[in-house]
Amino acid sequence: MTETLALVSSGIDTYRQPVVYMHEDCHICRSEGFAAQTRIRIDLKDRWIIATLNVVGRGAWLAVDQAALSVSAWAALGAEIGDDAAFSHPEPPASASMIRAKAYGERLDQAGFAGIVSDTLNSRLSDLDLAAFVTACAGDRLNEAETVALTRAMKEAGQTLDWGQHTVLDKHCVGGLPGNRTTPIVVAIVAAAGYLFPKTSSRAITSPAGTADTMEVMAPVALDAAALRRVVEAEGGCLVWGGGLALSPADDHFIRVERPLDFDSTDQLVASVLSKKAAAGATHVLIDMPVGPTAKVRSAGAAEALGIRLSSVAKALGLNLALHISDGMAPVGRGIGPALEAMDVLAVLRRAPDAPVDLRARALDLAGHLLDLAPDAVVGQGRVRAQSLLDSGAAEAKFMAICAAQGGFREPGTAAQQIEIRAPHAGQLTAIDNRRIARIAKLAGAPRQKSAGVRLLVRIGDHMDKGQPLYELHAETPGELAYALAYAESQTGVLTLSEAVS
Amino acid sequence: MTETLALVSSGIDTYRQPVVYMHEDCHICRSEGFAAQTRIRIDLKDRWIIATLNVVGRGAWLAVDQAALSVSAWAALGAEIGDDAAFSHPEPPASASMIRAKAYGERLDQAGFAGIVSDTLNSRLSDLDLAAFVTACAGDRLNEAETVALTRAMKEAGQTLDWGQHTVLDKHCVGGLPGNRTTPIVVAIVAAAGYLFPKTSSRAITSPAGTADTMEVMAPVALDAAALRRVVEAEGGCLVWGGGLALSPADDHFIRVERPLDFDSTDQLVASVLSKKAAAGATHVLIDMPVGPTAKVRSAGAAEALGIRLSSVAKALGLNLALHISDGMAPVGRGIGPALEAMDVLAVLRRAPDAPVDLRARALDLAGHLLDLAPDAVVGQGRVRAQSLLDSGAAEAKFMAICAAQGGFREPGTAAQQIEIRAPHAGQLTAIDNRRIARIAKLAGAPRQKSAGVRLLVRIGDHMDKGQPLYELHAETPGELAYALAYAESQTGVLTLSEAVS
Repeated sequence: MTETLALVSSGIDTYRQPVVYMHEDCHICRSEGFAAQTRIRIDLKDRWIIATLNVVGRGAWLAVDQAALSVSAWAALGAEIGDDAAFSHPEPPASASMIRAKAYGERLDQAGFAGIVSDTLNSRLSDLDLAAFVTACAGDRLNEAETVALTRAMKEAGQTLDWGQHTVLDKHCVGGLPGNRTTPIVVAIVAAAGYLFPKTSSRAITSPAGTADTMEVMAPVALDAAALRRVVEAEGGCLVWGGGLALSPADDHFIRVERPLDFDSTDQLVASVLSKKAAAGATHVLIDMPVGPTAKVRSAGAAEALGIRLSSVAKALGLNLALHISDGMAPVGRGIGPALEAMDVLAVLRRAPDAPVDLRARALDLAGHLLDLAPDAVVGQGRVRAQSLLDSGAAEAKFMAICAAQGGFREPGTAAQQIEIRAPHAGQLTAIDNRRIARIAKLAGAPRQKSAGVRLLVRIGDHMDKGQPLYELHAETPGELAYALAYAESQTGVLTLSEAVS
Repeated sequence: MTETLALVSSGIDTYRQPVVYMHEDCHICRSEGFAAQTRIRIDLKDRWIIATLNVVGRGAWLAVDQAALSVSAWAALGAEIGDDAAFSHPEPPASASMIRAKAYGERLDQAGFAGIVSDTLNSRLSDLDLAAFVTACAGDRLNEAETVALTRAMKEAGQTLDWGQHTVLDKHCVGGLPGNRTTPIVVAIVAAAGYLFPKTSSRAITSPAGTADTMEVMAPVALDAAALRRVVEAEGGCLVWGGGLALSPADDHFIRVERPLDFDSTDQLVASVLSKKAAAGATHVLIDMPVGPTAKVRSAGAAEALGIRLSSVAKALGLNLALHISDGMAPVGRGIGPALEAMDVLAVLRRAPDAPVDLRARALDLAGHLLDLAPDAVVGQGRVRAQSLLDSGAAEAKFMAICAAQGGFREPGTAAQQIEIRAPHAGQLTAIDNRRIARIAKLAGAPRQKSAGVRLLVRIGDHMDKGQPLYELHAETPGELAYALAYAESQTGVLTLSEAVS
């Protein structure tokens, strides 16, 4: 019961949700009873997907004997101009009944989660299905066995890296702290100490910069698995973008629906982080968890609950995991934005006199903790060893070698447009709102414009005079500068200044 | 922080999900950081909505300085050609945090549900939000107090009908049985008995005919509230389409996401049914629940669980509710499809010698049960009274008067294309698959083509010879007839014939 239509590209980007556009008078719509939002199976040669129907009215841009595809549907089918595809009612994917079972409160096993993950990757579940799935897993609705099963299913659906019998160190930061760009420094130190550290990072989703964005200012990061292996075999460490590697690839799909729902699901976070670490071949993982009222983890209680589930699931997966609770009260370093953060990283690695001391201290803490995790470590010696590798220049040399292996080092650039924001009155700086200072950096163009963002000129505890510069806005165009400035001037309390009492 | 663009209509029907299309080089997308699937607030004069962004590539159908709207977004904003609208990042609606709270397992009160219902109706929640909401309410996740609160919130967000101190009878069938078109007969009998019965019905969503589709073959059904009141004040009863009346209007939005998820949530069903009955002003409601392996309610246990929750929520809302469990093993009457079912209804009302006895018996059972519910009833006399009103012609006269009051009666038409499906071997008919016989009727064109569908020529228990006609396919075009025939011939077991043993 299938019929065919000529495929055309719609040029419409619906992100990852495949959409098919058909004319309201299309004979297939009429005979099959397809209406807007119907899920339709589309077969082309040996591939098939399920897409959501949008119906295009008469006199618009679509011919009656054509079907147009969204960008993601076109790519998933491997369509070419002139292809004829077949359209039919899909059988509901088997995993849809697993999602219903979970919504009704049943327990799923690994085969159940594997089916959901597989149909997610094959574009056979709709965004509604995925929203139902992440909702059914939210709160405390996964037990530990289910979180382990989901993590394993996510890991096994993608590429995995195998480093043989080597100790492989890794770290992950449960995000939310602007400018907290310790990773390049930590990788450089740990690789300089002789350990494997094949670090993959993400680009920013909602923040002004991800580690991959910051690294890309200094070196190419879009490496495939073979190139990553060459870099790590040569230098011990790498700093690449994970997006091209398909490590736990279903995670991006789940995040895509969790983000607009603003769900903060412990079990999904655990599965997301640990499936990627396990897929990357890590043996020892340090989880950095900045805790503060405007950070992602807002209380010690939340950190503890997350830590317990991370530790137990890691153990079940055979990963050695340690937690590193850090201060999440304020941004780290001076820069917020890819190039501005890269400058901070380089200042620390180069032992510049004005290098941000908080970024240096955090990187040494993390690198020391990681070195203490290694099976051959003398526990407690890690931080001293890390400091020695940084102060000797060994870490800087290792970082430059990694950049060279990834395709060549380049210095971060400076934005054409800059302006200072000044203190409206004298006082002491008592707080910085992580979320709003990040928003200002984004309005200035970060991370899309690499040199855009915010450069903080003051630290918590500083006393300052009226009119003293608090921070700089950096932008590539006058329009973006004005845009960020207008928002900054409309807000009070982004930086909290106590009134001077002297 | 808003900027404006000229609005154009995209002609794209996305059903009720508002979508905005912007050019990939649009300056607002760039400055605001909008990307595909971003939720965007659109302000036009004194209205605003939140729509989902789809990004249109270069060289496609959209100009860089325009924004196109989906059909539903265009209507919700009341846009006209040439309007300039403002685009900005929306604050998340307050109800989104209520949905999260429910997903995390918290209890919601009526204000919480009212906020979700209100933002649903104002297009401020996305389909993902709605999917999360119905998932968070699925299984046993609403307690009785929450189901009552949700039902009240849904009722109060729409129009309500007030019939003063009158007894107002109503019925609802928890669907799933093809051809079970008792409602027009029951309304005619109960109104002939002198009670108020302002019946609103739905069109088919997934079935070959809804009561509104069948009634529309015989009389206009798209009446507004004032017209409905005139009909009921003149004749005691009416049979109109509920879709134009905004009784519990959020229900359609929830069903829109529940249907593709194939969720069967007791509490959502209870809230859906009872909010509409309460809004219609009913005082006494009979719930018809056909139970059978291929009906919607598949077991006595499922019927009991649903009945308990229906009864307790109805009581909290001040509704008198009774349950009527009926046999859901097979279709009722002969016709499946709007006109074919209307012919069965008219045959019963007209006491035709060949009127389907099962449809007549079910309608009398239901009408009798309803008459027994009235406060002035002599309980147990209802069915005799119903039969007398039907046999005397009083019910037929009342039905014709109702049709006249709604705009005029018309006879159902007959389809141009008909073909018989014959028994492949001799045997006794032991079962009919409700779901697949309904699918055949839909492939023949029902409910879009009013005269299309299936006409059953045999009943469960009948003995038949090889080649004896089992049912007719009715269609308006040869293509649709061929389509339904091809499916029917590809299936075994739609009608189960035991092998003859004589």
